Amino acid sequence: MTLAVRYTGARTLDTASLTSPPPGPGEVELAPAYVGVCGTDLHIFHGDMDARVHTPAILGHEMSGRVVRVGPDVAGWRPGDAVTVMPLRWDAACPACLDGHQHLCHRLDFIGIDSPGAMRQRWIVDASVLVRLPDSLPLDRAALVEPTAVAVHDVGRAAVREGERVAVVGGGPVGILIALVARDAGADVRVVEPSVHRRLLIEKLGFIAWDPEADDVPGLVRRWTGGAGAEVAFEVSGAAAGVSTAVDVLAVRGRLCLVAIHARPREVDLHRFFWRELTLVGARLYGRSDFERAVRLVAQGVVPAEQLITRVVPLSEAPAAFEALEAGGDVKILLDCTGGTEGALA
Amino acid sequence: MTLAVRYTGARTLDTASLTSPPPGPGEVELAPAYVGVCGTDLHIFHGDMDARVHTPAILGHEMSGRVVRVGPDVAGWRPGDAVTVMPLRWDAACPACLDGHQHLCHRLDFIGIDSPGAMRQRWIVDASVLVRLPDSLPLDRAALVEPTAVAVHDVGRAAVREGERVAVVGGGPVGILIALVARDAGADVRVVEPSVHRRLLIEKLGFIAWDPEADDVPGLVRRWTGGAGAEVAFEVSGAAAGVSTAVDVLAVRGRLCLVAIHARPREVDLHRFFWRELTLVGARLYGRSDFERAVRLVAQGVVPAEQLITRVVPLSEAPAAFEALEAGGDVKILLDCTGGTEGALA
Repeated sequence: MTLAVRYTGARTLDTASLTSPPPGPGEVELAPAYVGVCGTDLHIFHGDMDARVHTPAILGHEMSGRVVRVGPDVAGWRPGDAVTVMPLRWDAACPACLDGHQHLCHRLDFIGIDSPGAMRQRWIVDASVLVRLPDSLPLDRAALVEPTAVAVHDVGRAAVREGERVAVVGGGPVGILIALVARDAGADVRVVEPSVHRRLLIEKLGFIAWDPEADDVPGLVRRWTGGAGAEVAFEVSGAAAGVSTAVDVLAVRGRLCLVAIHARPREVDLHRFFWRELTLVGARLYGRSDFERAVRLVAQGVVPAEQLITRVVPLSEAPAAFEALEAGGDVKILLDCTGGTEGALA
Repeated sequence: MTLAVRYTGARTLDTASLTSPPPGPGEVELAPAYVGVCGTDLHIFHGDMDARVHTPAILGHEMSGRVVRVGPDVAGWRPGDAVTVMPLRWDAACPACLDGHQHLCHRLDFIGIDSPGAMRQRWIVDASVLVRLPDSLPLDRAALVEPTAVAVHDVGRAAVREGERVAVVGGGPVGILIALVARDAGADVRVVEPSVHRRLLIEKLGFIAWDPEADDVPGLVRRWTGGAGAEVAFEVSGAAAGVSTAVDVLAVRGRLCLVAIHARPREVDLHRFFWRELTLVGARLYGRSDFERAVRLVAQGVVPAEQLITRVVPLSEAPAAFEALEAGGDVKILLDCTGGTEGALA
């Protein structure tokens, strides 16, 4: 019997004991070590995604762990291997898949939302979703690979080049990771974030952070860029005001990469898109190469996981992790599924 | 003394007799032959652009004509040469110019709006704005080069490739030209246009035209594209509903090229930009290479000017041309500045 945390309805998580059958052909049994709690998990917890999520639902799509058992017809994996999971499955038949955009499959299965996820002690997955982790990378840090892959994909979609000025609007976990990845690509990065707690961390990471509620951000960008504007802006806030700020700060031919989820239509200054020939580019999820690059960036310390992981909570105390994330003040909270056997961050 | 038509205030055009001094160093005196009346000219006529336009203003930026006199220090031009004018002047010093985007100059002078235009019998311009016309191209047809250059630029910004499905939302003069240029690039093009008069012309030009007020355009696009959606949409309507349609018809990774002027912010379904990784790209004006390609497309008949020019009116009757354009039913109306010496379309 193994423990799993399940979402059973708005604001309710329970703990269940599940049997763990042997992995079938093409499958691998994992022992999840650490599972990050994501903003999407919080949306589900709030009941906002009940139309999509089938209860009881085992959440969790930011994970690290080890292979425990290998099913028939699986090559290349052995018990003890350190892994993370790229939590996407596609139908390989829809127009998006046939066009090579599998992560945008019309019938995408996002593991941890559309199908059961990683918040458990044992987890059987298809071997095709495994991504190898280097032995040198502690598994708690490795739980940041999935959100880092999001940031790698976003920076790639925006085609950030060395020397460009980049404004990241919204300094939550994904915004911070985008700032780190863009800086690694050689960009000069500023972050716009209203929370003072987050701004302090962002500044500790070596970025200049602006408060959109107190600072004249477009004016600061003009001064920073000699009147030109920023080459790239990332909208990671999810707020209407964030969209306006991201549009306002851009230079002629600037690119706005839209990362945040805006459930409602937003008023957009299309005249400025016309006048300055701006580009808006949507960015969602990642591909395999984004994921593998994210592994390297976390392993190299480009992503300083020890500064971003602000809390580690035992799996059995998952509700406390969700409540803490909701209260704010944390950046990334991990669930420890190991009972302490992998050793968490000091 | 030469005749000029001037905008003097909302809904008022007058006719003035001006002296024509000899061209100065670097300048050329032209005899405009034909001048197209553009939607922007109509906006000015309505008084909507009085904050930008200094009265009395000589309008006209879609022109053809001949060189009459050549000033000192001008090489390469002789009296009688057939020309059009690329009506842009930039400061060569602002961040956009220094970055190579002169047509997006922060202090762009658009000739015919910001400075005096072509609706006159004699016109002195800087030789740098001249674009040579082939002798084989009748000057009435050549008045379509400027709006064709807009379409060439738009199709280039959208990076239309052979075999792609393209939806043009808005079938006015620019929308029709975009459809023609995109088809010439090998695209399969549909046009969405509410006016039955325009749809009839669009169908005569060989396109399928849909009525957004009667047809289920997104459904028709799904059927057309096997459920995928169109690779490219052009928003040329300027209407809020046109923006929605253009977003709704796009495939995963589809590109929306924003051509129309939206004076007010528009509600945009940003979630769909995220979900399908769509791109929105603003397109404004043109560069020199767009203009030169437009000359070739008009000369080759890719742009069937004789079907698009629905009326030619003597310069002295310019007010009638503006009234006719406003009444609808026409596509492109030209002012004849020659007194009939160049011979208009039969």
